[in-house]
Amino acid sequence: MKGLAMLKIGEIGWIEKDKPKCGPRDAIVKPLALAPCTSDVHTVWEGAIGDRHDMILGHEALGVVDEVGNEVKDFKPGDRVIVPAITPDWDSEAVQRGFPSQSGGALGGWKFSNFKDGVFGEYFHVNLADNNLAHLPEGMSLESAVMITDMMTTGFMAAENAEIGMGATVAVLGIGPVGLCGVAGAALRGAGRIFAVGTRPKAIEVAKEYGATDIISYKDGDTAEQILEATDGAGVDAVIVSGGGPDILIDALKMAKAGSKIANNNYYGKGVGEKDTIPLCRVNWGFGMADKDIVTGLCPGGRVRMERLADIISYGRMDPSLMATHVYKGFDKLEEALLLMKDKPRDLIKPVVLLDE
Amino acid sequence: MKGLAMLKIGEIGWIEKDKPKCGPRDAIVKPLALAPCTSDVHTVWEGAIGDRHDMILGHEALGVVDEVGNEVKDFKPGDRVIVPAITPDWDSEAVQRGFPSQSGGALGGWKFSNFKDGVFGEYFHVNLADNNLAHLPEGMSLESAVMITDMMTTGFMAAENAEIGMGATVAVLGIGPVGLCGVAGAALRGAGRIFAVGTRPKAIEVAKEYGATDIISYKDGDTAEQILEATDGAGVDAVIVSGGGPDILIDALKMAKAGSKIANNNYYGKGVGEKDTIPLCRVNWGFGMADKDIVTGLCPGGRVRMERLADIISYGRMDPSLMATHVYKGFDKLEEALLLMKDKPRDLIKPVVLLDE
Amino acid sequence: MKGLAMLKIGEIGWIEKDKPKCGPRDAIVKPLALAPCTSDVHTVWEGAIGDRHDMILGHEALGVVDEVGNEVKDFKPGDRVIVPAITPDWDSEAVQRGFPSQSGGALGGWKFSNFKDGVFGEYFHVNLADNNLAHLPEGMSLESAVMITDMMTTGFMAAENAEIGMGATVAVLGIGPVGLCGVAGAALRGAGRIFAVGTRPKAIEVAKEYGATDIISYKDGDTAEQILEATDGAGVDAVIVSGGGPDILIDALKMAKAGSKIANNNYYGKGVGEKDTIPLCRVNWGFGMADKDIVTGLCPGGRVRMERLADIISYGRMDPSLMATHVYKGFDKLEEALLLMKDKPRDLIKPVVLLDE
Amino acid sequence: MKGLAMLKIGEIGWIEKDKPKCGPRDAIVKPLALAPCTSDVHTVWEGAIGDRHDMILGHEALGVVDEVGNEVKDFKPGDRVIVPAITPDWDSEAVQRGFPSQSGGALGGWKFSNFKDGVFGEYFHVNLADNNLAHLPEGMSLESAVMITDMMTTGFMAAENAEIGMGATVAVLGIGPVGLCGVAGAALRGAGRIFAVGTRPKAIEVAKEYGATDIISYKDGDTAEQILEATDGAGVDAVIVSGGGPDILIDALKMAKAGSKIANNNYYGKGVGEKDTIPLCRVNWGFGMADKDIVTGLCPGGRVRMERLADIISYGRMDPSLMATHVYKGFDKLEEALLLMKDKPRDLIKPVVLLDE
Repeated sequence: MKGLAMLKIGEIGWIEKDKPKCGPRDAIVKPLALAPCTSDVHTVWEGAIGDRHDMILGHEALGVVDEVGNEVKDFKPGDRVIVPAITPDWDSEAVQRGFPSQSGGALGGWKFSNFKDGVFGEYFHVNLADNNLAHLPEGMSLESAVMITDMMTTGFMAAENAEIGMGATVAVLGIGPVGLCGVAGAALRGAGRIFAVGTRPKAIEVAKEYGATDIISYKDGDTAEQILEATDGAGVDAVIVSGGGPDILIDALKMAKAGSKIANNNYYGKGVGEKDTIPLCRVNWGFGMADKDIVTGLCPGGRVRMERLADIISYGRMDPSLMATHVYKGFDKLEEALLLMKDKPRDLIKPVVLLDE
Repeated sequence: MKGLAMLKIGEIGWIEKDKPKCGPRDAIVKPLALAPCTSDVHTVWEGAIGDRHDMILGHEALGVVDEVGNEVKDFKPGDRVIVPAITPDWDSEAVQRGFPSQSGGALGGWKFSNFKDGVFGEYFHVNLADNNLAHLPEGMSLESAVMITDMMTTGFMAAENAEIGMGATVAVLGIGPVGLCGVAGAALRGAGRIFAVGTRPKAIEVAKEYGATDIISYKDGDTAEQILEATDGAGVDAVIVSGGGPDILIDALKMAKAGSKIANNNYYGKGVGEKDTIPLCRVNWGFGMADKDIVTGLCPGGRVRMERLADIISYGRMDPSLMATHVYKGFDKLEEALLLMKDKPRDLIKPVVLLDE
Repeated sequence: MKGLAMLKIGEIGWIEKDKPKCGPRDAIVKPLALAPCTSDVHTVWEGAIGDRHDMILGHEALGVVDEVGNEVKDFKPGDRVIVPAITPDWDSEAVQRGFPSQSGGALGGWKFSNFKDGVFGEYFHVNLADNNLAHLPEGMSLESAVMITDMMTTGFMAAENAEIGMGATVAVLGIGPVGLCGVAGAALRGAGRIFAVGTRPKAIEVAKEYGATDIISYKDGDTAEQILEATDGAGVDAVIVSGGGPDILIDALKMAKAGSKIANNNYYGKGVGEKDTIPLCRVNWGFGMADKDIVTGLCPGGRVRMERLADIISYGRMDPSLMATHVYKGFDKLEEALLLMKDKPRDLIKPVVLLDE
Repeated sequence: MKGLAMLKIGEIGWIEKDKPKCGPRDAIVKPLALAPCTSDVHTVWEGAIGDRHDMILGHEALGVVDEVGNEVKDFKPGDRVIVPAITPDWDSEAVQRGFPSQSGGALGGWKFSNFKDGVFGEYFHVNLADNNLAHLPEGMSLESAVMITDMMTTGFMAAENAEIGMGATVAVLGIGPVGLCGVAGAALRGAGRIFAVGTRPKAIEVAKEYGATDIISYKDGDTAEQILEATDGAGVDAVIVSGGGPDILIDALKMAKAGSKIANNNYYGKGVGEKDTIPLCRVNWGFGMADKDIVTGLCPGGRVRMERLADIISYGRMDPSLMATHVYKGFDKLEEALLLMKDKPRDLIKPVVLLDE
């Protein structure tokens, strides 16, 4: 079968591989909708997680079940499914500790395009089908549903980790698709005022649609200063960090109230200096004592999460299809879509590739 | 001055009292908008909290500051203010334990129309003005803002206590104004499907506006059975109990999943039997082991809460004025409004009385 | 093989059954140490969970692995293991919701002596061996280790659910073995003063050893009154309910502060009246508004929990062997041990039966 | 009156000042026991919080009430009291947000020797006496009680923030007095294995007494490597950071499990490089996705906290007097005690100065 792969750091290409094999509790799935992710860009062009060779890329997919193992109960060939980017080993010790996404080691729930082939192939393998797949609700738009798999779950996670009180003031740094889902997530957790930091007109339009009340641009000066000024010096109750360079936490700490959460869902593709670090500002962190907690996570995966986020769409809480600014038809358009994600034209939020069933 | 009072259990009337005196950190406020509450009905006609004599009723008010004590910094005569139903003693030990509403003993933050005169007088006294009052944002509708003081903060509290996960399924039992704010609160915490249990057409209309996705009526049979059937037997992740008789928790436990929260904001005006109890169903409670927690509280008061809920309105997250179905003009209409709350005509959600400034 | 079974409600006896069969991820285990539980008494003589026929009893065991399925990786025949009373289906949706003990429905993690044969047989079956068994640390006393499986995990659960602040005041109602573990758990969560309510001298001795600072007896009057008096009317920050009749929550609510947790780990074998209910006192519950939350659960099972509680013993945090007041040798002593649990002589805390390896 | 002051960065000396004046809700207190703190050292010799001139140092004190304001109800001259290092403004908005220690701005609850004179004077001023002072229990040793004011509350805070599960594995980096209280706090939250990182024999002895099970020394190699090796590569569930240079979080992230808390109670007197930053290791932080949260805080103050920690001592949960390695008699020994804290001889944990009543 064919797949779009990372050949090595900095290089992608189409390769041929054997169709993956199905374990007793697993499934083989054919893609129905695919979306490239900034993570793919970090992985390939920044070498963020180290080198990989001939690894098929991609971790955002809807699909049609092609084959299931003999212990799978709830899915059968032909079922249309939502495939989470993160597919934990539900029988691992990390689950018992409360951290499914970290099953089998740090980021271990992230299998696709990390340490096994991703979803950008004609077929792909899903571990623990009953626990990780969710049925695609009938009639749900593919452009919407594919956003569940990573963008929504990642963006919402930060809003959840931010422990937003009803009516609290929130800043979202970065309004790429994950940041936009952070905005939507903040509104869905009951935020009052929401600052969204970004400059791209299309993203700003969607941010407002999702609940942003104030748009902040670096072009108007230091973003933290602007937010402090807009809040009469008080700052914000929570910061969602969904973009920015390796020193973005400096900004976050500056605008956060003493007594706040800084919820990161940024994937740091690179750090500062040769020691490859992410710096905190000692003074704005209150010398380590200002109750500004920095909370993180890898996006929650698994079946229940997918089902619940599908309900978010089904019951009209959010319309994620607004982010699908570039929709392609056909598997062979995948490379173009991925390069678009890398190049980030100003009107792009998220490219989606739809495939024939 | 004049006030509408509880004369004794079962009887109300207009009385004359001295204008209250202002302590150094307190304020005297003239009402600008007033709303009767079902609690007033429980208190007077059910004798729910015991007897009271010649106590001015009412705890939902907007007002204009008439006088402030000499230690008050942030308010001055003429300021238009939001007055929380619950005005904690912020320097009490309960605050240090994390329970401001219980300051000074059980329900001690509830002073108005409980153990001091309420807001249904020409003037009323507010303790700790800087900590309990909030400025009424310019241009905010009075019908909206008066809902903050009790309905929103109480309804939202249950939604917060219910620890609703993103996309979780919630049932709200009772769609009086507190229940409607429970519906809105559940949506604002990220619920997916929301069952609202009620029958009154006007309330149903508003419930849908606030995010209810399914309306359940007792006229169609046992409500818990209906919700279990609608969820294929799974039940709900959270139940918000905002109405019903003293045995309503029986219903709640029946429809709640093993592993759920039952968040009560119901004021039990009476109990079951001569022992005056609220019963749990042993079997549906899993013999005490089914992880169905029953969480409660008295609505959060204080300045920050009022400010944050004002932000909920200012930033367009919810329009509470939809609940103001009956709007009166003039202080002398207060009795009519209160009796309306007692009689509950079918088209009533909440009466509001607006006063001249 | 032979097993000690519930023949029907009110009757036990030795029966013959086939040795259980091992699934691919399961294990067959021979008992090494067994302990009867009050739950067995509730189940048989109160019919608490309904009728059962010829079901082997027991859910507290250490064992030696006899056989493992071909997918089991971490255990092999001959391994000495700790077997949790609760053995969740780790691949169920309840796990993804955060409630492993409720996997597969209410109390679904409780399989032994509930809906499959228990551990009081010559062999017993354990589902998901890798996820539910834990290795018995070398040199650990069997009398200690067998307490992990239910007593410690259940008692500690209530202390955890009680959200005890450092130095907070706690009351533990009932000092059977679960209540004693509640006392130890409260001390291990940082409680200051701990009231233990009970009368049996041996239990009182161990309660003090585990951290109880005040012993309260019903013989000296109303226990809640005594605790209120001892705290100058303040009451306690948390109540752990580990015993008492069906109306024990009445007591708990009376002694709990406004702003407190009532953490139940009591198994209600019967309720009040023909409606079979557990009553709350309306007034002492603050009419549903006094922030007295009633939190519950079924004891946490699974491998990680067992390993962590084994560490509690290994690192000297608690000595559970103090509870093993009656130690028998030989499988045939099981019936005597169980009847002892039913009869509860005054010097009994917990009987343990040790078997030859 | 006389006081031991910071004259400017790097310089201390005795100065004369007017006796402080008492506000209506405040108290003037004479010291009964005083303890210098590493914070004083950071403040004076590292200039950690910027320059100060002729500011009396010290924030750890027991005292005798000399004078109270006319609104103070619970204290009178002659009362012996525990004085928390942190004395929040309980009527500030930060309290309503849940962050008393940050009242009035970042670290605003820290008044003594930060932005008003500290406790190293013949008299000192305490704001909000009823809310911040606690009665010293009769018979409690002064060496024990003075540890409550900062060491215990700070050390315990990190253990609380670390959200230690029962039996979890914890590492405490640094075993100065705050780190030792972190060890004790971890044990009191139910930790199983506790690694303590330090080298000083006296501190090691006390760490073991407080519950440390493994002592790790940098002299035996990289401390994180040692802990990883001792845990078979698993790492720890929680890290308490109570010492180390500005890059100590690098170590913490290395030894922390994916899915863990890093609870900081370290006061960072200086940062790395001219940008004065605290660096995180990008890779060991899982590129921002490994669920390793960094949680902080300023030690909780106020009356209830002091009372609860006094109960920890009264009920025998911990003996903090073990840390009082150097006890002086007389106010004039204060300078010697402070310089001892600066010089840190190997047998020092904490100096305490006792004064005549």
